[in-house]
Amino acid sequence: MAKKQGKQTYLMQQCLTVRAWAAVGSKKEGQGPLASGFDLIEPDSTFGQDSWEKAESRMVSLTVAKALSNAALTYEDIDCIFAGDLLNQCVGTTFGLRDSGIPLFGLYGACSTMAEGMLLASLLVDSQTVRRAMAVTSSHFCTAERQYRFPLEYGSVRPPSAQWTATASGAVVLEEGNQPPYLRAAAVGTVEDLGVTDQNNMGAAMAPAAAATLRRFFADTNTSPEQFDLIATGDLGAIGSQLLVELLQRDGIDIKSRHTDCGLLIYDRQKQDVHSGGSGCGCSASVLGSYLLPSLRDGKIRNLLFMPTGALLSPTTVQQKESIPGIAHLVWLSHEKEGIL
Amino acid sequence: MAKKQGKQTYLMQQCLTVRAWAAVGSKKEGQGPLASGFDLIEPDSTFGQDSWEKAESRMVSLTVAKALSNAALTYEDIDCIFAGDLLNQCVGTTFGLRDSGIPLFGLYGACSTMAEGMLLASLLVDSQTVRRAMAVTSSHFCTAERQYRFPLEYGSVRPPSAQWTATASGAVVLEEGNQPPYLRAAAVGTVEDLGVTDQNNMGAAMAPAAAATLRRFFADTNTSPEQFDLIATGDLGAIGSQLLVELLQRDGIDIKSRHTDCGLLIYDRQKQDVHSGGSGCGCSASVLGSYLLPSLRDGKIRNLLFMPTGALLSPTTVQQKESIPGIAHLVWLSHEKEGIL
Repeated sequence: MAKKQGKQTYLMQQCLTVRAWAAVGSKKEGQGPLASGFDLIEPDSTFGQDSWEKAESRMVSLTVAKALSNAALTYEDIDCIFAGDLLNQCVGTTFGLRDSGIPLFGLYGACSTMAEGMLLASLLVDSQTVRRAMAVTSSHFCTAERQYRFPLEYGSVRPPSAQWTATASGAVVLEEGNQPPYLRAAAVGTVEDLGVTDQNNMGAAMAPAAAATLRRFFADTNTSPEQFDLIATGDLGAIGSQLLVELLQRDGIDIKSRHTDCGLLIYDRQKQDVHSGGSGCGCSASVLGSYLLPSLRDGKIRNLLFMPTGALLSPTTVQQKESIPGIAHLVWLSHEKEGIL
Repeated sequence: MAKKQGKQTYLMQQCLTVRAWAAVGSKKEGQGPLASGFDLIEPDSTFGQDSWEKAESRMVSLTVAKALSNAALTYEDIDCIFAGDLLNQCVGTTFGLRDSGIPLFGLYGACSTMAEGMLLASLLVDSQTVRRAMAVTSSHFCTAERQYRFPLEYGSVRPPSAQWTATASGAVVLEEGNQPPYLRAAAVGTVEDLGVTDQNNMGAAMAPAAAATLRRFFADTNTSPEQFDLIATGDLGAIGSQLLVELLQRDGIDIKSRHTDCGLLIYDRQKQDVHSGGSGCGCSASVLGSYLLPSLRDGKIRNLLFMPTGALLSPTTVQQKESIPGIAHLVWLSHEKEGIL
């Protein structure tokens, strides 16, 4: 089983590989810089369905099916799947997986869910409790806007600090194996809240959680940022990213030269009118599948800390003037089986 | 690590014990037949807060604190907690655990969440990945009504098939140990959907999922209902319970003499005007903590299959005329370390 190190870090003891993955997006993602890495770009964001929620579910099932076909596997080969999305009661996930028959662990970790799922999947595979597990998450611009903010029909103007929810989904298949990318370690997040209340600046609300998880991971593993090629958060956007760098600098941890954010990678912020960057469970998951995992496989990235962050608010808590707690889970993905530790 | 048996059943290989637990309820639960088993009955369902959502969060933190004090442990002694509730974006959980500092895995499994959390906690403890894990869930009548149906102020009339969401929370602490109750095995659920669309009859919508999990558990372990004292679903209510018995009878599995439902135990249906029975994540969790676990400890129940069921709908999917998928996760709790298998 994984070796617990410190309060919340787990080092894998088996050789865990991401056997296959998939990323699915829609029109805007297809116009972004990572378009060519997606397995499927469906320009019609209804995905042929008569509601946005059904569109998101359809996208989830397409992503899972694509990851399985990339792995040359079927539903029956998967012991369990960890899955979640941003919708009320996670219906993107449950309707999307309704016909799969895969034993399901439903998760809610807001935009941190992809790492939460990979983390739990890796702990079960590493302990040989299961042979093969999947993780999948999704988000859809149109379902998220009407649920978290306003229906699109209202034509609300978005402030510059706002992020753009990606219409995207990503899935991975984890098992023991001898080909990169490897999943080497993981760190479970805690709820952090420094009192930010602006729901149009969720990057700032989530930065303290990202800083907390990263700080503890470096301490627990006795490593430092320069030992990793890339630290990819998701999705702090432009403002939250800067805040994260500053928060860690106060503790003498300099991630500036290593840090990027999935919300900054998925779109061209100059040309695509996405304000502070992309967001949503599906943003980091699809950046992982379209860019990060292929780069790790090919050795273009050798060691990556993938750390999606979640803003644990609801429209109700915002109306009730609550602050926005955040959480960040981390997985260390590597081109190499060993090294660094 | 746990031994996988069949498609979705896991037999624990270590001796796992529920070291401690807690159940918290409010006025109506305090008038029910299990009142004396609760650790805390707070007659004021606001729990001293200025919104129902904050009341639910407060209840969650009280329940976790009570389970820890029953275990003579503190937050720092817990490696991780699995937690969820029914609210949009699970804010009962995240705000309730905000100050605990416990590494958090947020779950969404509707009313099946307590078993989902215990199942994941037990797999991590059994594989010795973690030493000690918690699970907690909650529900609140007033938050659930306004979210799933109508705000209370509308005074809507409820049909007889409707269930009453319990204002309650339950938590458990799991570790290796040598005192009952023991957690012996678990089965992960799959999404099942036979096309029920009536959100006032969720028991009927969930019964197929309960039947599916139970059928597979008996097959995977080569056991039969009469080997267990009690099979406690949660929360099928009166109508769903009858349907479950009938569905299994068709397969030659007779659970009638063994079956009860947490939604039927928590209230006195004759006197308490709860129509088809109780429901909510907190219903089965608090019945577990107030009645089932104490009975297992004392040997009044020797072998229990605890199987909360979740209706994976949202108000949006109901408006969109979708059917209601269900899921049921199972844990086998026992007064004995061995036997039956």
